Amino acid sequence: MSKTDNSEDACPLPIGQYDKIVMAHGGGGQLTQSLIDKLMLAEFDNPALNEKNDSAVLAINNERMAFTTDSYVVKPLFFPGGDIGKLAVCGTLNDLAMSGARPLFLSCGLIIEEGFAIDSLQKIIHSMSRQAKAAGVNIVTGDTKVVEKGKGDGLYINTSGIGVLDTAMNISPSMLQHDDVVIINGDIGRHGIAIMAQREGFKLEQALESDCADLSGLVKLLLDGGIDIHCMRDLTRGGLATALIEISTAANKQIMLDETAIAIADPVRSVCEVLGLDPYYVANEGRFISVLPSAQAAQALAIMHAHPLGKKAVVIGKVDKGSQSMVTIKNRIGTTRILQLLSGSQLPRIC
Amino acid sequence: MSKTDNSEDACPLPIGQYDKIVMAHGGGGQLTQSLIDKLMLAEFDNPALNEKNDSAVLAINNERMAFTTDSYVVKPLFFPGGDIGKLAVCGTLNDLAMSGARPLFLSCGLIIEEGFAIDSLQKIIHSMSRQAKAAGVNIVTGDTKVVEKGKGDGLYINTSGIGVLDTAMNISPSMLQHDDVVIINGDIGRHGIAIMAQREGFKLEQALESDCADLSGLVKLLLDGGIDIHCMRDLTRGGLATALIEISTAANKQIMLDETAIAIADPVRSVCEVLGLDPYYVANEGRFISVLPSAQAAQALAIMHAHPLGKKAVVIGKVDKGSQSMVTIKNRIGTTRILQLLSGSQLPRIC
Repeated sequence: MSKTDNSEDACPLPIGQYDKIVMAHGGGGQLTQSLIDKLMLAEFDNPALNEKNDSAVLAINNERMAFTTDSYVVKPLFFPGGDIGKLAVCGTLNDLAMSGARPLFLSCGLIIEEGFAIDSLQKIIHSMSRQAKAAGVNIVTGDTKVVEKGKGDGLYINTSGIGVLDTAMNISPSMLQHDDVVIINGDIGRHGIAIMAQREGFKLEQALESDCADLSGLVKLLLDGGIDIHCMRDLTRGGLATALIEISTAANKQIMLDETAIAIADPVRSVCEVLGLDPYYVANEGRFISVLPSAQAAQALAIMHAHPLGKKAVVIGKVDKGSQSMVTIKNRIGTTRILQLLSGSQLPRIC
Repeated sequence: MSKTDNSEDACPLPIGQYDKIVMAHGGGGQLTQSLIDKLMLAEFDNPALNEKNDSAVLAINNERMAFTTDSYVVKPLFFPGGDIGKLAVCGTLNDLAMSGARPLFLSCGLIIEEGFAIDSLQKIIHSMSRQAKAAGVNIVTGDTKVVEKGKGDGLYINTSGIGVLDTAMNISPSMLQHDDVVIINGDIGRHGIAIMAQREGFKLEQALESDCADLSGLVKLLLDGGIDIHCMRDLTRGGLATALIEISTAANKQIMLDETAIAIADPVRSVCEVLGLDPYYVANEGRFISVLPSAQAAQALAIMHAHPLGKKAVVIGKVDKGSQSMVTIKNRIGTTRILQLLSGSQLPRIC
């Protein structure tokens, strides 16, 4: 049966071996990809969506616009370094920035569970407002729904966002070139481990805060500085490894990472070791990678080092020649391993 | 304490007498208004949001764009005349259309409860796709989150939408003029009562389907036909009465309705009588009112009568002179009553 023949009652395609949604379908790994590919992309099928970028880039009359959406279901709602409101605004600003867009407007859709404390709601709305104002962006439209006790979990937030592309650049995996460098703006794993530690009540020897931050200002500096960015991705659900595997797959290029260049804070490393988590797959909310020509690496790093969110920016890898989609990582003793897409998520409800 | 003095921990303002969210905060009535005014508008404060229209109308470089968001929490997910997918697409298309915009792009944010049947998800996604394609609109960006069993209710959908305004017209309550007519495109209350009957297992003598439909094509005919629409509103949560009260309040104009002109289908009337519901406050998902100059009423009706969703369009009222915000309705025996904003909702989880 061809796709356009689908009748009123669409014939269910098997999504992997599952007939029901499991937590791993939301983890950002293989099962999420499979659900998106076999269901959403198969049904909605259009060029902007099929690009699978953080934002859709759209031509609207004479403008190039970016449009993105994200729902936030993080648990707990308040965590060291932020709350669901800050996360929802930063996350959507970052998705716009990753496509090269200048964020302009956000929406705010709330699904509130009956019984939720109004002072908590007020703190979260205040947090959204403060973060949006800091970015010079207005929250221009919203919606509020209430569901019965036991049909939600306090508060879920959807933020969608619109931005405008001031540049004619195409920032996407297809732009990757042999010898491009991969730059990251700091250490990895803080958001996921801060949430996990808070949720599980771990007492850490060193305080650990989420890295949750708005990256759009830093990205603007790079674009204004004339850096010819080929691809960007923020390292949220699925972490550094998942982002790079997705890019490598979409680009049909091998990405080679140097483990010694990738910083991991001690408390993140400790919790990962105790729980058997791989920090390369742990979510960040204020880290991104940019892929750009090696000839511009020094200039890009200089720009980033001058911004509070880019002080620790480093080159962590490069794009190999050939057309094999693969992400490899060389460790301290010179051994190379291949990073694979996980089936699900190590940590659910992280964003 | 002034608004800009709010510290990190915002001091909770009382939202009515409540310190916790109750179902009525999501009902679209007084409590929803109070929550939006005292919390969202106070914090997010900007001209586009403060208009409180179904869509924000935004100037982006040389374009006038509309941007809207809605989360859908309807229960049950499948109902006579549609499902949550059709509702989510139509609802957001309608919100764009009500601002005079031509819908262009939608987003799709899913919050799925663990254990949800994948074939149900597929039917809903198919339904979204079919409805979007029928409107010539692409779903260009999406997000999928999964929450644990007992932390959701099957599926919640957020759809945000972008449209472009091809006209320089300002369609908003502030445009209301004395002697304008109020036109509705059909009978009222079908969506709310169809959902209610399905949820409660009522056996109706006559079949009743939701009126859920995409109104953007019909609105386009009116605009292309040169009708000088002053204001439009789709009659969703809170029904005809709430929409008109909101318009009357924003416009500072009295709206006078003629009850004998407002059609209510027999099964809707019967269920309302049995349950003590007022059909003027029951949600519709394919009905809208337009307010326009009386001199253009005949032309507008002729345009609407030629469209499947406007066959039963009629004038149901007019705008009075003076500047008193009030909605009155004259009944069959000539008595006039004032329609008041309800505190909450008669029917929760209707959209």
